[in-house]
Amino acid sequence: MLAGGVGGARFVRGLREAVRWWHPDAAIDVVVNTGDDWWLGGLRITPDLDSLLYTLAGQNDEQRGWGRVGESERVAAELQAYGVTPEWFTLGDLDLGTHIARTAWLRSGASLSEVVARLQQRWDLGGVRLHPATDDEVDTHVWVASDAGGEHDLHFQEWWTRYRAQLPALRFEQRGLAAARPSAGALAALEAADVVIIAPSNPVVSIGTIVSIPGMRDALRAVTAPIVGVSPIIAGAAVRGMADACLAAIGVATDAGAVARLYGPRSGVGLLDAWLVDEADAGVVDGLRADGIATDAVPLWMRDLDSAAALAEAALQAGLARRSAS
Amino acid sequence: MLAGGVGGARFVRGLREAVRWWHPDAAIDVVVNTGDDWWLGGLRITPDLDSLLYTLAGQNDEQRGWGRVGESERVAAELQAYGVTPEWFTLGDLDLGTHIARTAWLRSGASLSEVVARLQQRWDLGGVRLHPATDDEVDTHVWVASDAGGEHDLHFQEWWTRYRAQLPALRFEQRGLAAARPSAGALAALEAADVVIIAPSNPVVSIGTIVSIPGMRDALRAVTAPIVGVSPIIAGAAVRGMADACLAAIGVATDAGAVARLYGPRSGVGLLDAWLVDEADAGVVDGLRADGIATDAVPLWMRDLDSAAALAEAALQAGLARRSAS
Repeated sequence: MLAGGVGGARFVRGLREAVRWWHPDAAIDVVVNTGDDWWLGGLRITPDLDSLLYTLAGQNDEQRGWGRVGESERVAAELQAYGVTPEWFTLGDLDLGTHIARTAWLRSGASLSEVVARLQQRWDLGGVRLHPATDDEVDTHVWVASDAGGEHDLHFQEWWTRYRAQLPALRFEQRGLAAARPSAGALAALEAADVVIIAPSNPVVSIGTIVSIPGMRDALRAVTAPIVGVSPIIAGAAVRGMADACLAAIGVATDAGAVARLYGPRSGVGLLDAWLVDEADAGVVDGLRADGIATDAVPLWMRDLDSAAALAEAALQAGLARRSAS
Repeated sequence: MLAGGVGGARFVRGLREAVRWWHPDAAIDVVVNTGDDWWLGGLRITPDLDSLLYTLAGQNDEQRGWGRVGESERVAAELQAYGVTPEWFTLGDLDLGTHIARTAWLRSGASLSEVVARLQQRWDLGGVRLHPATDDEVDTHVWVASDAGGEHDLHFQEWWTRYRAQLPALRFEQRGLAAARPSAGALAALEAADVVIIAPSNPVVSIGTIVSIPGMRDALRAVTAPIVGVSPIIAGAAVRGMADACLAAIGVATDAGAVARLYGPRSGVGLLDAWLVDEADAGVVDGLRADGIATDAVPLWMRDLDSAAALAEAALQAGLARRSAS
């Protein structure tokens, strides 16, 4: 599976449930977006990897929708008092433990993949293995118009968290991307996969960033397994997050069909063998099928674990059907 | 003033009080030991500088005798769960804020002196300025006998905190010492001083480490100000801490007179113009005077702020008396 943060985490939890019941021999490898990562207060923060880690470990804050359950912010208050971190980005105390551990291991020479493997050892993730899409640092910056004319950039986290993606994005810049390579774990997982699922994550800054890592698109197009995508858009609105602001920046409509065409059919130069849209978007099915993407309309909203598991099983079945067909 | 951690902090607080009442125009510069510093969990920890910072800022835990008041240990539990820090060294949450800030600034290229200056800006230290003795990393290791014969070393913090200085030390090794230089702030403070006071800190691993930084001893011997030391030993016992274990390792008796001779008279090749011992040690006064160290017996025990201030004023007066005499 390819996944971003919170939305991806919900879907993976459903997938784990589906696998547990119907495919108990199967393992789940998740290739996780690292384009939201950044340095803050001298610590390397990897929001998507952490969302997946905490959610799969049962340590996430269900109420708030992100971060650790039972979180506190004593250290963050200190960091803000020292002027080390901005007031618009708060690091929870428990979360900071993860950041400190990660940074210590990175500084001692471990790759991000090794760090992720070590962090996972603490908890039982139920057979799910997380892999950063790349071990190389790729930080996303967002270019916006300046008040005084011209334009300037800010880190994706500032645009996303401080400005809630409300500053119109002119374009995204992935710094370090040209020199980045897919992680060995990501490539091995893709090669061994029976089905590849693209989670209903942000198609621009999560899935888009994973796919734009040099070598990743070729690796995806080379997999023998079918590739099934799940739409992050239902009836013209993002399932969660602010994907619309990201899609607007690259001139793509916030529409389940438009995102499928952004990914493109594998029979062309794209990635998708199959695509799942919500029943509310059944109108796009025929057009996408005509474009070579085997599309089905299913209940796409993940209200709870059961609905997430049912959606994941639908994605798996869409893939397995393509597999036996080929 | 030259000072180590907790004992030094108490004395400086007394000195600040004495200066406030009797020498309101005077400023206090403290040259602080950095030999206890270490890297833990990817963070640079500077125990003595922090003890002084917290105590002078009124943020120290009086009850416990070290660390921040109102401290908690949520992050430390995370770090131990990840296996990043050992169970015998707990980093408080509030304290971690300081370590993260320090490390972030150091990693961004600031010197330790600049870091200390920034940390001090957060609080009103009542006119006291802290300077690390050196900006270079000098980590103290302790050599001890191995069970299987031979010997091995451990970081000073492990010897001190985990083993409570109970493993007999064969010798101390200051790694990085040969390449270290006194900080510019320390040298400037010494040069401008009217009186230099050596606090009643550990004479081996605090004062001893400061003085052994290449160039520091020469700088001290070159100051025009008188140098007054305050004994860290009263009646054969350390005022606080485990100085006896450190003195034993270098073959010096735990005795107010022996420590004075370790520092030595400035008229010889040593550092001291004057020396204060406790009234319980009045017996050493004459011998030290004969050796060229102007020694007085005064109440040395810092029970509270008033007694610390009285002791500091006695040290100041001993220095000022030498100054007008010269």
